Amino acid sequence: MSTAISPLAPKTYPDLPPIDGVRLATAAAGIRYKDRTDVLYAAFDRGAAVAGVFTRSKCPSAPVDWCRKNLPFGSARALVVNSGNANAFTGMKGRQAVETTAALAARVAGCGPENVYLASTGVIGEPLDASKFEGVLADCEAKANGFAWMAAAKAIMTTDTFPKLATRTARLGDVEVRINGIAKGAGMIAPDMATMLAFVFTDAPIGARALQPLLAAGADKSFNCVTVDGDTSTSDTLLAFATGGAAMIGAPIIDAPDDKRLAPFRRALEDLLIDLAQQVARDGEGARKFVTVEVTGAVSARSARRVAMSIANSPLVKTAIAGEDANWGRVVMAVGKAGEPAERDKLAIFFGDIRVAVDGERDPAYDEATTSAYMKRDEITIRVDLGLGRGKARVWTCDLTKAYVEINGDYRS
Amino acid sequence: MSTAISPLAPKTYPDLPPIDGVRLATAAAGIRYKDRTDVLYAAFDRGAAVAGVFTRSKCPSAPVDWCRKNLPFGSARALVVNSGNANAFTGMKGRQAVETTAALAARVAGCGPENVYLASTGVIGEPLDASKFEGVLADCEAKANGFAWMAAAKAIMTTDTFPKLATRTARLGDVEVRINGIAKGAGMIAPDMATMLAFVFTDAPIGARALQPLLAAGADKSFNCVTVDGDTSTSDTLLAFATGGAAMIGAPIIDAPDDKRLAPFRRALEDLLIDLAQQVARDGEGARKFVTVEVTGAVSARSARRVAMSIANSPLVKTAIAGEDANWGRVVMAVGKAGEPAERDKLAIFFGDIRVAVDGERDPAYDEATTSAYMKRDEITIRVDLGLGRGKARVWTCDLTKAYVEINGDYRS
Repeated sequence: MSTAISPLAPKTYPDLPPIDGVRLATAAAGIRYKDRTDVLYAAFDRGAAVAGVFTRSKCPSAPVDWCRKNLPFGSARALVVNSGNANAFTGMKGRQAVETTAALAARVAGCGPENVYLASTGVIGEPLDASKFEGVLADCEAKANGFAWMAAAKAIMTTDTFPKLATRTARLGDVEVRINGIAKGAGMIAPDMATMLAFVFTDAPIGARALQPLLAAGADKSFNCVTVDGDTSTSDTLLAFATGGAAMIGAPIIDAPDDKRLAPFRRALEDLLIDLAQQVARDGEGARKFVTVEVTGAVSARSARRVAMSIANSPLVKTAIAGEDANWGRVVMAVGKAGEPAERDKLAIFFGDIRVAVDGERDPAYDEATTSAYMKRDEITIRVDLGLGRGKARVWTCDLTKAYVEINGDYRS
Repeated sequence: MSTAISPLAPKTYPDLPPIDGVRLATAAAGIRYKDRTDVLYAAFDRGAAVAGVFTRSKCPSAPVDWCRKNLPFGSARALVVNSGNANAFTGMKGRQAVETTAALAARVAGCGPENVYLASTGVIGEPLDASKFEGVLADCEAKANGFAWMAAAKAIMTTDTFPKLATRTARLGDVEVRINGIAKGAGMIAPDMATMLAFVFTDAPIGARALQPLLAAGADKSFNCVTVDGDTSTSDTLLAFATGGAAMIGAPIIDAPDDKRLAPFRRALEDLLIDLAQQVARDGEGARKFVTVEVTGAVSARSARRVAMSIANSPLVKTAIAGEDANWGRVVMAVGKAGEPAERDKLAIFFGDIRVAVDGERDPAYDEATTSAYMKRDEITIRVDLGLGRGKARVWTCDLTKAYVEINGDYRS
């Protein structure tokens, strides 16, 4: 397995500030990996409103089932995440492992198990030995602090080559609130909840009733616009925790989804989620190019999105980009196979600002040298105008390289 | 580009007999390749009933448009196929190239242009210079004979590593009729008309009205069950030509689709199409394993097929097979993402005869060594029983190797 950091990794990592009401710790429980942390423990000492968006897989992991069941309670006191084992397709043993883990965390956090949120990432189908958490969670509780963001982002990594962090601030009433986020994900990344795991923490006093639609809308514009390989994980989990700590410095307590004062927070949250989602695409397994696919002129936004995903998921488009080949014919193919309204003779295709095809054929001004030079960049934008309507969409992906095959040919063994 | 023959290629090629009323010739027109043939010319001197199934792409190639337009005429006198250039997304120039080619072929064959069928495969978006056909078609007509099947199969290859041929016989009335087929296709292979090009020739006196539904039904059980990369070509074309030559030895002339005497022919045609379709999967770009995916216990055949295709198109499943990794967790993932009715705890998964998972978890009798030994085979069967109903489906694919990425990263350049 390649251990080199993706060439598309950010040059610097943001420094995440503490969030009032959030303490973090990590540990090495030896679940699968040696010589690295594989457990993240987060404590919300005064509780946190919680919202969640999960995989649409029909075969979800045991932790996803657990979170879904408890989400209506709407209040979190602890979060436990492990890497190395997804606890997915583990049957009754998986449910027992989830219950054991929640009970252990509840004991150290001093809450009920229904206030513990869980996520697991790693191999599917191997039973997860929950006894491994026994020693480490009490240690974590003892040492948890407001500063361990980088450690947290690292503990949840699997095939990721770099930790993924983002932070934003937003006005809420007259006060500035903070939003921190971490994510992991590099493969098995597809439209329906693109990252395997992402966690957002804020001190904003926003109730679960308002937080849930904010998070769902944000996921739609961010993680649901990223695809690495079109494969949807059994474990995709995006959770947001709002501690309300900022109420003590005067932030208004908001529980109504349509409260006008949420607008700046909504924008900041969306921006943070897009940042994290793009980091996931930049760390796509084997990725050497970050690719933005924009579709305009579709009959609807939904249609534009399907065409964009058809392009972004096409192995032939993605291998061409890996080969720095301006093969716009494959973009035509991917438009054609999407099954959405398209008229060959109205199509225009751009690589960056270069129009390569128009009116159903190669642009008369097409210049191979200019286009080839563009394809050598790290960041490529493919734009397709369907010329039919006003629907548009934008999605992010990466190229498909030999390294993807290498990483996934021996991930498990 | 790799030039080694696929390890999954047939050990021997069948020897195709002449078909009364079909003459074949090939030529090197220098369309794109050097030092190889790239044109196939077939003449049907007494005419042939013709049936066709084409790509569902919304951006079909100019030859596909041409064949679709002429199919209602129902009578072919010539077929011209070229490799090296797909004449797809070539706008007005593409339509002109098609008209020029048909006119040239019509002149040498002594028929109207509407009796000429055309197919092109190769690069998309490059104008096809139809003047290249000018000299070669007259030569082809002069030398065409009933024996050039191997040459025909070779002339239509692009990234194929071996020529694809099949032959069958069937009783029609009291007479034995012959069916020959050739195909090409190695990438851009997906559910909707999997092979780029396939041509079937028979001396059976079956009219177009009966031939079309026979061909469509056969395609559904063969080419539409093959996927290499989920990408659908702009040029997929399956044409069948029935010369009726066997009428002279006493075969009945049949024009009604529901004629009972067609049953043996239907079975032989379907068998031949499956043979050709499997050859396409065996020559999937970079393929090292031939994979059969069987789904049983689905709520319907349609649902079973979608689940099977979700497995067969999953890059993570395909890379695991390339890595000889019995990663059935990824099969669970692919079942889950298909969006079809599935219950995790009723799933059973088999690799060959080895049951690896049952009742939503790893089979208690699972043995890694046995399963790993199975994964080293050239031919792998993945079977999933959903445990819900009686719907079943079977599709064929291949593994996803580094060679696929290599071939497609520099196909065009």
